[in-house]
Amino acid sequence: MLAEIITIGDEILIGQVVDTNSAFIAKQLNKIGVSVYQITSVQDDKDHIIKSLQEAEANANIIIITGGLGPTKDDITKNTLAAYFDDILVRNEDVTQNIYRIWKDHLNNTPTQINLDQALVPSKAQVLMNYHGSAPGMWLEKGGKVFISLPGVPYEMKGLLDDAVIPKLRAQFKFPYIQHETILTYGLGESALAERIEAWENQLPPYIKLAYLPSLGRVRLRLSGKSMDKDLIKNEIKRQIALVLPQIEDIFVGFERDDSIEAVIGQQLAESKKSVATAESCTGGKIAELFTANAGASRYFKGSVVSYATQSKIEVLKVDPQLIKEFSVVSAQVAEAMATSAIKLFDSDYAIATTGNAGPSKGDADADIGKVYIAIATREKVFSEVFTFGNHRLKVINRAATKALEMLQKEISKK
Amino acid sequence: MLAEIITIGDEILIGQVVDTNSAFIAKQLNKIGVSVYQITSVQDDKDHIIKSLQEAEANANIIIITGGLGPTKDDITKNTLAAYFDDILVRNEDVTQNIYRIWKDHLNNTPTQINLDQALVPSKAQVLMNYHGSAPGMWLEKGGKVFISLPGVPYEMKGLLDDAVIPKLRAQFKFPYIQHETILTYGLGESALAERIEAWENQLPPYIKLAYLPSLGRVRLRLSGKSMDKDLIKNEIKRQIALVLPQIEDIFVGFERDDSIEAVIGQQLAESKKSVATAESCTGGKIAELFTANAGASRYFKGSVVSYATQSKIEVLKVDPQLIKEFSVVSAQVAEAMATSAIKLFDSDYAIATTGNAGPSKGDADADIGKVYIAIATREKVFSEVFTFGNHRLKVINRAATKALEMLQKEISKK
Repeated sequence: MLAEIITIGDEILIGQVVDTNSAFIAKQLNKIGVSVYQITSVQDDKDHIIKSLQEAEANANIIIITGGLGPTKDDITKNTLAAYFDDILVRNEDVTQNIYRIWKDHLNNTPTQINLDQALVPSKAQVLMNYHGSAPGMWLEKGGKVFISLPGVPYEMKGLLDDAVIPKLRAQFKFPYIQHETILTYGLGESALAERIEAWENQLPPYIKLAYLPSLGRVRLRLSGKSMDKDLIKNEIKRQIALVLPQIEDIFVGFERDDSIEAVIGQQLAESKKSVATAESCTGGKIAELFTANAGASRYFKGSVVSYATQSKIEVLKVDPQLIKEFSVVSAQVAEAMATSAIKLFDSDYAIATTGNAGPSKGDADADIGKVYIAIATREKVFSEVFTFGNHRLKVINRAATKALEMLQKEISKK
Repeated sequence: MLAEIITIGDEILIGQVVDTNSAFIAKQLNKIGVSVYQITSVQDDKDHIIKSLQEAEANANIIIITGGLGPTKDDITKNTLAAYFDDILVRNEDVTQNIYRIWKDHLNNTPTQINLDQALVPSKAQVLMNYHGSAPGMWLEKGGKVFISLPGVPYEMKGLLDDAVIPKLRAQFKFPYIQHETILTYGLGESALAERIEAWENQLPPYIKLAYLPSLGRVRLRLSGKSMDKDLIKNEIKRQIALVLPQIEDIFVGFERDDSIEAVIGQQLAESKKSVATAESCTGGKIAELFTANAGASRYFKGSVVSYATQSKIEVLKVDPQLIKEFSVVSAQVAEAMATSAIKLFDSDYAIATTGNAGPSKGDADADIGKVYIAIATREKVFSEVFTFGNHRLKVINRAATKALEMLQKEISKK
């Protein structure tokens, strides 16, 4: 059972927006056992869309299309679908009511004709009601194949996919079992790791696939299995992981969950009723932002001081100016003082502090570009490490944030 | 002159990573006048890659492929390209030296055989040297069409694209002139805007395309022109913008530059030697992170207090507990006190403060989900506005951050 995803919109093909919808859809489909054969992004062009629909129909059983459902002239997906299914557009009463409701509840206003025309759908389509916007989702079938059209606005698409599309697909088809397990390692390069576990890789059964995903100093090992026999996959992946773990003990940091490392930390802290705060210089609030992106962060995240200017390290974080004078603002001493200060300021159980130079220029502290000190403090102790994260500003910021979270998680997990 | 982008990797098709490479490549190609016909993401599968190469060759003159160049078994792009071009892999001496250099300079280590085998390239390929990694870029030609293979690691791909691919393409082909101008509006919905400017839209010449890009309370209007006659496009787009601006005066906020609003603010502040700080509750450091993502932020960004816990608003920001008791932590009074405090703490000329409830639950303050107070302070005054940003946590955070930046820019621009 294969799916294809078609994302429609010139804005994708001129690089004005990154297509994040496809990854979300692919992940949700995988969870229910549907493999995605191909993702295709095409222009708002009738012939091109029809051509891609024909190709997708030839390759896949489930075709999910996003985008081009807006009310304006450049949105042509609906008319194109009608043409592809040799159909006409008819007004759907439920959608009309939904549009009136949205305009009343959220815009204290009545919809215009252009808005109301979003209730026009192909007569052969089953409507998937979009409670977050005026463009409905549409479900069409042809020779046992399913075509699903969703709006391109990410949160509208997500709502429709989770609430309507996935349940309807599960009700209609019997899907194989798909399982992915991703092992997080760091400290060893992709090729060195590959050489180390080569013998193990070679004995993997054909229905278990191995992938190496190198990224920012880490390598993720992904095992993927797919079969109608759920137990076979579950047991074999379990067995294979048990075989490989002893060979990578020194670089193994855990299994990748759907949740990010900051979400995992948050869960650990919430369970143990502990809290964390951050004092960030070169990461500029990135770590705080990662924590607070998670629902319920207020249970464990106390706050952060982003002490970007040296003066604010003294004024706000009360770092001893002598320390800065003696060791420079980019130093282990200052990083540790920042972390200790964060513990006091926010009365937290843990604190992360970062100071360094993200580049592109050397800056006041005259520290090498990419050099970052990361300190972790508890109520009892503080320690720090120094890293060099290359010369790409955003990469330095992201690597420093990731590394800091890894250091914190190691510390928390000790307990 | 059309291009096609093919991104290779199972991780994309199972939704484990978002394909950001395609948007970057598409943007760079557009800048030199190359339109992207289609973006296709395919699995690490030889037959599938060959099929997509054949389709791309039929549609486009320039085919750019990313991914699958790693040293491990699941990386099959190079062998597949060799097969597609009926070619063999040969060892390239320059790449071999580059690999030795990287291992020496960055890993204090010598490469293993697997690493050195990354110097194997199709004999017909021109090597594009990758100074950021061990996998080289490759340039192949067939019947006047160009096939370019780049590593999937974003910063390696970007380096190769900007330093090698784009210059080489410009040297080899004569491209038409492409221009995109994007008008930023907010306060009016997509369809209402479309109705208002319908007459103008209808008189646009065929070589000027209009697109509506709605997002988080804003609608971006993109005008795109393409022709060998550069002046024709430049003048016509200029003329059309002059025609439409008077009709949207009330909702016009500016033109979209490649730089974000925070970058524009940064430039304005740096030029006027002014500074900004933030005091963030519900945005959790997002605004600080947006500022500090820009190079040279230290010239104007003083710092931030992320006062997530109520206690930290009192301890760190010195907000009067009475104020919180009387008006609740989510109130105009507290937002304004936070902003004023940030001005003092960081000795900045401007400050942004946010307090609200990003959801999903009601939280201590019992404030409605999505309700956010945003305050802007200068050394002389402070003011605030209240917004409701819906019930989607990340959307609330992003909309609050964007709106706060819009408020600040309006204030700065007054001067």
